[in-house]
Amino acid sequence: MQLQSLREQVLHANLEIARRGLAPHTFGNASGIDRSGSKPFVVIKPSGVDYAALTPADLVITDLDGNIVDGSLRPSSDLQTHTLLYREFPQIGGIVHTHSEFATAWAQACRPIPCLGTTHADYFHGPVPVTEPLAAEEVASGYVRNTGAVIVRCFRSGKLDPVAIPGVLVAGHAPFAWGRGPAEAVEHADVLEYIARLAFYSVLLGAPETGIPGYVSAYHYLRKHGPKATYGQQ
Amino acid sequence: MQLQSLREQVLHANLEIARRGLAPHTFGNASGIDRSGSKPFVVIKPSGVDYAALTPADLVITDLDGNIVDGSLRPSSDLQTHTLLYREFPQIGGIVHTHSEFATAWAQACRPIPCLGTTHADYFHGPVPVTEPLAAEEVASGYVRNTGAVIVRCFRSGKLDPVAIPGVLVAGHAPFAWGRGPAEAVEHADVLEYIARLAFYSVLLGAPETGIPGYVSAYHYLRKHGPKATYGQQ
Amino acid sequence: MQLQSLREQVLHANLEIARRGLAPHTFGNASGIDRSGSKPFVVIKPSGVDYAALTPADLVITDLDGNIVDGSLRPSSDLQTHTLLYREFPQIGGIVHTHSEFATAWAQACRPIPCLGTTHADYFHGPVPVTEPLAAEEVASGYVRNTGAVIVRCFRSGKLDPVAIPGVLVAGHAPFAWGRGPAEAVEHADVLEYIARLAFYSVLLGAPETGIPGYVSAYHYLRKHGPKATYGQQ
Amino acid sequence: MQLQSLREQVLHANLEIARRGLAPHTFGNASGIDRSGSKPFVVIKPSGVDYAALTPADLVITDLDGNIVDGSLRPSSDLQTHTLLYREFPQIGGIVHTHSEFATAWAQACRPIPCLGTTHADYFHGPVPVTEPLAAEEVASGYVRNTGAVIVRCFRSGKLDPVAIPGVLVAGHAPFAWGRGPAEAVEHADVLEYIARLAFYSVLLGAPETGIPGYVSAYHYLRKHGPKATYGQQ
Repeated sequence: MQLQSLREQVLHANLEIARRGLAPHTFGNASGIDRSGSKPFVVIKPSGVDYAALTPADLVITDLDGNIVDGSLRPSSDLQTHTLLYREFPQIGGIVHTHSEFATAWAQACRPIPCLGTTHADYFHGPVPVTEPLAAEEVASGYVRNTGAVIVRCFRSGKLDPVAIPGVLVAGHAPFAWGRGPAEAVEHADVLEYIARLAFYSVLLGAPETGIPGYVSAYHYLRKHGPKATYGQQ
Repeated sequence: MQLQSLREQVLHANLEIARRGLAPHTFGNASGIDRSGSKPFVVIKPSGVDYAALTPADLVITDLDGNIVDGSLRPSSDLQTHTLLYREFPQIGGIVHTHSEFATAWAQACRPIPCLGTTHADYFHGPVPVTEPLAAEEVASGYVRNTGAVIVRCFRSGKLDPVAIPGVLVAGHAPFAWGRGPAEAVEHADVLEYIARLAFYSVLLGAPETGIPGYVSAYHYLRKHGPKATYGQQ
Repeated sequence: MQLQSLREQVLHANLEIARRGLAPHTFGNASGIDRSGSKPFVVIKPSGVDYAALTPADLVITDLDGNIVDGSLRPSSDLQTHTLLYREFPQIGGIVHTHSEFATAWAQACRPIPCLGTTHADYFHGPVPVTEPLAAEEVASGYVRNTGAVIVRCFRSGKLDPVAIPGVLVAGHAPFAWGRGPAEAVEHADVLEYIARLAFYSVLLGAPETGIPGYVSAYHYLRKHGPKATYGQQ
Repeated sequence: MQLQSLREQVLHANLEIARRGLAPHTFGNASGIDRSGSKPFVVIKPSGVDYAALTPADLVITDLDGNIVDGSLRPSSDLQTHTLLYREFPQIGGIVHTHSEFATAWAQACRPIPCLGTTHADYFHGPVPVTEPLAAEEVASGYVRNTGAVIVRCFRSGKLDPVAIPGVLVAGHAPFAWGRGPAEAVEHADVLEYIARLAFYSVLLGAPETGIPGYVSAYHYLRKHGPKATYGQQ
């Protein structure tokens, strides 16, 4: 039951990647985790399969270490990044990786996305950080797992909260976003692309890299998040 | 009767925001006002509801101070900006707020949009102004109402006519546009995005910030507006 | 018969403006001319009518001086530009005016579009020229007719051939394109937008303003035009 | 049988050019080659025919020197570029030529596309090279064939492998891409456009022209290509 529901949520998030144009071809992938039992399991997209052809049964089930529990197809080549993030960020329940245009451009330029407006502040409580590049030995000794490791290092060293900043740019690569579940993760991936696009145009128009005042960004973030949220219907 | 018609116009304007791609997700909102009776009332979108699911009955009715008169859902979180604008600009009958890409980029860059061509001059009689940023105490003491207040201050201090300049950029936030009713407001929001886009490309090509000569912009504005208008079928 | 056929071609060209996204709202217009009889007549879009609602019967028929011969609606507000071009450029049979994004940006920046590649050279035998701005007295004494006059002056003073260069940018305004008939005019308007877009990106990447060598552009233009053309099926 | 299958693959690749928006109007063309028999033959799009109207029977069959073997229509005006590439690059089985926006802009700027990220590295093992411009005598003595010749010269002089770098920018013109067959060629043309777009945005954001470290690009290329590939389902 629960597994079937998670399969459907993960499938839906993968289809949203394509529908929203966040990744061409078979780039991009979404996963979700069920932490309710004694042995958490991860549901993830198989590798290199067209979005149009995906069914819930194609999805691959693994444990938190990436060992396959169920599924006849190879899991996404990014699996070890996902499982490492699930182990290190216990608050998150879904992860989405895209190669969306503007977020990827910021990642390729190795620049964090400054918080230049309230669209950004409503979702990300501070700049979207960019990781360090992987060192040669990190590529050689486990590229995919170490992609997760540089993300975690980026958050730890910057004392960043993955709940308040639900996404990151991997330098020279592309964005990862996450949320409480697969649906929120893909929403965050989509918003990340939108604010990356807005910031690109703004910077070309000379927007101040310092961004908006902290009292504005805090106001906007907190009206949508936390115990005093006032946005929406509850 | 009149209320029902205004509900439908406001619903339609909200759907146009989505259809024209002026705001992703639940960003953006449209409202309208009926000033014909002794107690004017405002019809506005509920907060955080998907455009696809909106019905006329979901819309919220308030008085000019933002007190709810009818409706079971929370009104848009931007309600107090709308009602303040309706109080201060008695000529306007509809307001649309978007986070459209290029207009938001100019807002984030805190730059007014110069009048660089006749596309602009046909709708806005001068540059599209940008407000000052809100001060910390303005955020703390009523952020949404004070968003309206900085807009009004921008027009008062610049001696601008809200009929001749039917929109504004809120610094570090996004645009607001208005018109005689909800339909004209959303048309102005759409044109504002288009001229923001044209101006972005033009400025990158080195367009003069002074813009086109005043005698050209005046000619264009007046052929579509006022007693000597010659454009269209009446 | 002939009139009915021209009505349909002009209607189709107007619909193509909208379908190809060359002008939002009711910006933009297409016309055609029949020069076969003793009294040439022009078929043009009415002013400010939505493309979606246009029928052949809505089109307005005028003589070469812009006097209405048939039609109950007001003609396009740009009529006098069209008729002046038909009088001065006897080789052309259709005219299309748009506010397409990139061509308008070059027009707003008052810069000619340099010939940076073969896409351009296949259609325009040299840079796309930009007119001078209209003087104050030209705006006052007949803005629309004088828009045609600055176009003609631009071609005369630059010794340009309107057949080899089937379009122009009106400074601070937008492009006009033309062709042997309405269908070719709208094709040229569409290609003009495409090469304006390519040139915008290229210039930002540092493309040389001198453009491609003359022997390349001549080769490309002549393979599609004139007695030695080899492109296509005849 | 084999011929019929290749006709269908080539038709499909040509339709993909249009469907993916890689070339407006009749710009762009795809071909395929059958090298299995003693006399290899090439299947190519006819010149200047609308994509929408193409049928398998419209395609033109030629030998490796471009002599027509079957077909009543004129072959693509770029035929001699295709056949020269098939002769010089015996590993390739399909070629696609487009005028896609961002790849063409880099070609017009005469700049190679640096490898700025893993999206690029997954498909192109190094920068996408740009040819030298054609000399005047090369244009005069066989422009189309010499377009192929400058491509081959570019690969030979740079010691580049056309399998590892399945595409090129022709200076002042546009891209060519290739693959094992027509389907892979059009996929490469599409990815080339995507990485050209990403690189454009990245460079404007100040991305380092040196690109990502060689050990990252090698890792990414080799995970999808060669005997140690791990991507996908086989």
